[in-house]
Amino acid sequence: MTVNRRFLLCRRPQGAPVPDDFRLVEEPVPAAPAGGFVIRNHFASLDPAQRGWMDDVPSYMPPIPLGDPVRATTVGVVHNSDNPDFAPGQWVLGLNALEDYSVAMPGGFTSVIDVAHVDSPSRFLSAMGAVGLTAYFGLLEVGKPQPGETLLVSGAAGAVGSMVGQIGKIKGCRVVGIAGGADKCRRLIEHYGFDAAIDYHGRSVTELAASIAQEAPQGADIVFENVGGDVLDAELMNLAMRARIVLCGLISEYNAPEKHGARNLWQVLVKRATMTGMLIADYVPRFAEGGAEIARWMAEGRLRVDEDVQVGLENAYDAFMRLFSGANTGKLVLKIV
Amino acid sequence: MTVNRRFLLCRRPQGAPVPDDFRLVEEPVPAAPAGGFVIRNHFASLDPAQRGWMDDVPSYMPPIPLGDPVRATTVGVVHNSDNPDFAPGQWVLGLNALEDYSVAMPGGFTSVIDVAHVDSPSRFLSAMGAVGLTAYFGLLEVGKPQPGETLLVSGAAGAVGSMVGQIGKIKGCRVVGIAGGADKCRRLIEHYGFDAAIDYHGRSVTELAASIAQEAPQGADIVFENVGGDVLDAELMNLAMRARIVLCGLISEYNAPEKHGARNLWQVLVKRATMTGMLIADYVPRFAEGGAEIARWMAEGRLRVDEDVQVGLENAYDAFMRLFSGANTGKLVLKIV
Repeated sequence: MTVNRRFLLCRRPQGAPVPDDFRLVEEPVPAAPAGGFVIRNHFASLDPAQRGWMDDVPSYMPPIPLGDPVRATTVGVVHNSDNPDFAPGQWVLGLNALEDYSVAMPGGFTSVIDVAHVDSPSRFLSAMGAVGLTAYFGLLEVGKPQPGETLLVSGAAGAVGSMVGQIGKIKGCRVVGIAGGADKCRRLIEHYGFDAAIDYHGRSVTELAASIAQEAPQGADIVFENVGGDVLDAELMNLAMRARIVLCGLISEYNAPEKHGARNLWQVLVKRATMTGMLIADYVPRFAEGGAEIARWMAEGRLRVDEDVQVGLENAYDAFMRLFSGANTGKLVLKIV
Repeated sequence: MTVNRRFLLCRRPQGAPVPDDFRLVEEPVPAAPAGGFVIRNHFASLDPAQRGWMDDVPSYMPPIPLGDPVRATTVGVVHNSDNPDFAPGQWVLGLNALEDYSVAMPGGFTSVIDVAHVDSPSRFLSAMGAVGLTAYFGLLEVGKPQPGETLLVSGAAGAVGSMVGQIGKIKGCRVVGIAGGADKCRRLIEHYGFDAAIDYHGRSVTELAASIAQEAPQGADIVFENVGGDVLDAELMNLAMRARIVLCGLISEYNAPEKHGARNLWQVLVKRATMTGMLIADYVPRFAEGGAEIARWMAEGRLRVDEDVQVGLENAYDAFMRLFSGANTGKLVLKIV
């Protein structure tokens, strides 16, 4: 491999991204800068958050500059290096981009990882990556589940949601998942062990709210929110007193030029509920602790973590859009090499 | 007075209430039931919450039954009684209705009040009533203001908002108020001692967000929300990291048949903010504590509490609608006798 294919953002998407918002270019493989190193990316994480980074709006990270490759968490191998802490051949995890090779400097987000005990290095983008740790810390630290409580999870068949539901079961909750389509709902029950699953497809807010009420007649003590929009509105009509809403994502709104908005916020008032925004970046010092418990649950067969592995930088656009079409089940990963 | 005028809800309002949703009727003055008593109402509280009770939707209180008088907190005098704890002539505060005379039973919400040290019994509907206590406990217990923090208050010239801002100043915050119109904004600065006031009239969400950014360049550490809709959306674009949003009211949405919704909830996520619903009913055991501190601040001249006293049950509809037109400054009270 003598070229570095890079998947560039060349235009800010209006609503849903279209192929022409991006361009795949070939450049020479970079050399390691003084004190830095070059990573051969093997897997890249595809996440809803990347859609936000494509907009030119204030967020917890700067927008991706136009002409730069799309920012992504990747796992890869140090290719060449001018830094003794990152030797060629070492596996690393870091915030890089959708490209064959990324230049990195120490002091950034890159860390060396031990892939000896995982079935695939991509596990560091799923179970032990931001997705798994988001499920773990979001549910346990913000949701604070207690045995016997009812946990309602939206986007339940997704990467974060499926882990949240399973961790909720481990913690003794009754777990109700909301997902799109009968297949996903069956999967929630049979594959992930949820107590109940609700299909939101083709249902109005009122109908969806009624379905939730059936499965959670006392209301939800915890709502783990990945979706927003109509789904959130239906959930808000089913809060238990002093419910905790973990605001983890609002994927239904990311591509919407005119956002729908949460119309039932008054229920937060009526039920004295609390809605708290959660970003995994706040838990970096505790990643080792969370990763270890996730690995243990997986080894014990109590936690299943699925990956939806798409292949090839040339398919980056189609792969990314699976997040929004609802096509992916499990953590979406792009295999680069 | 030998008749009991009662302001009945005879139809559930669609959007903004219209006069035909109500009817003023005359009935005989009731007799005290066994073990109960009859209250001659002197003042009734007019509050946005009453609009919610007129709808047939689940809330923290049952809907007002059609044909019943409009539920309201009142202060009045025991008129006749079959209960030794409530002797004729005693002043009482309770959850009654917009009517001359209300029947009450012990064990309900009625309590005897001491009006000797207030300039008007209506103070128990404003400064020391639900309004004052909502401002007090909402800001102090949910907002948790720290000296030097920035407090953003919507509906700032209203009954709750004007007290919240002043208590924020007492606690050492920089206080920025949002209100409708130049007069109200001037009043916030000159009358209530706010640090800054922003007029939302005629401003888009983007323009309002820019005005807030100017007055709160580091963002708001606390948002005390009374309004919702566009105002909330503009505030959400100006949160400081880990901001606390006290969700106290959403008055802009109460009459909206199609609710607008909060479109910028993603900022709660980005800023790891917390939004918590607040109802004064949760603080009943601490009313004496809050009332005493409010009275002390008023006596010290540090807290001004204004009342907008409208007169006459026959004017109940027009008086109530002042809440939504933005006409009232200070706590809206209906003087019945």
